[in-house]
Formats: sequence, C-alpha cells, structure tokens
Amino acid sequence: MPSFHRHVFVCINERAPDHPKGCCKSRGGVEVRDRLKSELTARGLSKLVRANNAGCLDQCEQGVTVVVYPEQVWYGHVTVDDIAEIVDKHLIGGEVVTRLLLPDQPHLGERTAFGALEIGTSAR
Amino acid sequence: MPSFHRHVFVCINERAPDHPKGCCKSRGGVEVRDRLKSELTARGLSKLVRANNAGCLDQCEQGVTVVVYPEQVWYGHVTVDDIAEIVDKHLIGGEVVTRLLLPDQPHLGERTAFGALEIGTSAR
Repeated sequence: MPSFHRHVFVCINERAPDHPKGCCKSRGGVEVRDRLKSELTARGLSKLVRANNAGCLDQCEQGVTVVVYPEQVWYGHVTVDDIAEIVDKHLIGGEVVTRLLLPDQPHLGERTAFGALEIGTSAR
Repeated sequence: MPSFHRHVFVCINERAPDHPKGCCKSRGGVEVRDRLKSELTARGLSKLVRANNAGCLDQCEQGVTVVVYPEQVWYGHVTVDDIAEIVDKHLIGGEVVTRLLLPDQPHLGERTAFGALEIGTSAR
C-alpha cells in the first residue's frame, strides 16, 4: 500500500567539487537524509512517513533542500539540527516550520498548517 | 520558484544482483527516468514538470515505480514505452493512466482526473 501519509524528499545530488553551483551532497544532504530516517524510525513512523533521497531539486542556491508531499512544502538550508523540529512540528503535527521555508511558494497561499498525522496505537 | 506544477519521482534504487527483492535499477529505472526527462524537454515542459530520480520507494515487487505529486498517483511496472502516454495523458492532460496504477491507493478514492497543465505560450 503505497499511500504514505507524507513523503519527504531530500536532495543529495553530487557535483564536481569545482562546480560553481555547489551541491546538496557537499552541504550535508546525506547526513540530513540519514537523520530524517533515523528520527522517523525512532518514533515508529517509517510506515506512515517515507523519507527518500532525490536527485537535484533545482534549488541549488538554497543549501540542502527538502520537499514534503502531498502538501508541497519546500524547505531550504536544512541541517541535521533542524530535523527533529521538522519531524515533530510538520510531519507529525502538520504545522509548517516557517523559518525554513523557501521563498516564493505561491501554491501555499497563506497556509501554514496541514492535517496532523493520524497515529493509531497499532501504527507505532 | 520551486512550485513545479507536477513533480515526478522515478525509483532508480540499486541492490546487489543476488538480492531477492531485485531493484528498480536492474529493471530499467534509469532508462525510464532518462526517457521522462527527454520527453518533458522535447515538449518544453521542464520548468513546469520536474522529473527526479529517487531512492527506494518501497514498492520493489511492482517493477519500476513512479509517483506523481502533488496528486500522489503511483504507477508500477513502468517501461520506457509507457512514458509518452504518462506525459501526454497525465502530466499534461491531468488524466490518470489507469492501466499502470498500483493497486490499493485509497487516497485517490474514485478519482482518475486532475487538472490539466496550464501551458502558456511563454512557458513553452
């Protein structure tokens, strides 16, 4: 059953060290993805929220980029220290972590909250 | 501006050749992704629809897996020969390619159509 409640993609694209755009891998993308996976596992949520690495999300100037679907919320400059907050506030609680939002997301309108995760006792 | 109208992820996860689950890479995931990117580019849509590779989408028994967001439509057993139809019918036209749908997608309900892509002359 592929309908995870939320699906999170972390850019881990790698470019040559001298590439002018840099890349998410050199900025810590792999560590961010690993922390995200481990925080989800620690909370027993890996069946409800899927974390995946992704190729270049085309936001290279924004540090490590993370996008949360289905609400399509884009975060930039994400570090491992931000992951617990993203998990607890957004992925579980449904509230956007506004301090990490990338600019120019007109599809969100003024919306900063989505549904909280429905966690049954059996799911954890 | 990160709000692509549609965002498509193709699993290209690779496992050891003797792994019992197999993997999307050995089943043609990379070729599927490349065809998707080239078909989008050929139609001038790369700014509106983003195609990305992804890590394991956890549907390993379903052949090459593709998921389309924000509608969260999952396709399985996708080959390069399916890509033109996915692009024209779904990514542009908004209609789900029902013959490729993975089973058990309760979040879709009975829905098989989403909005068609709004393509201005300037976008192409």
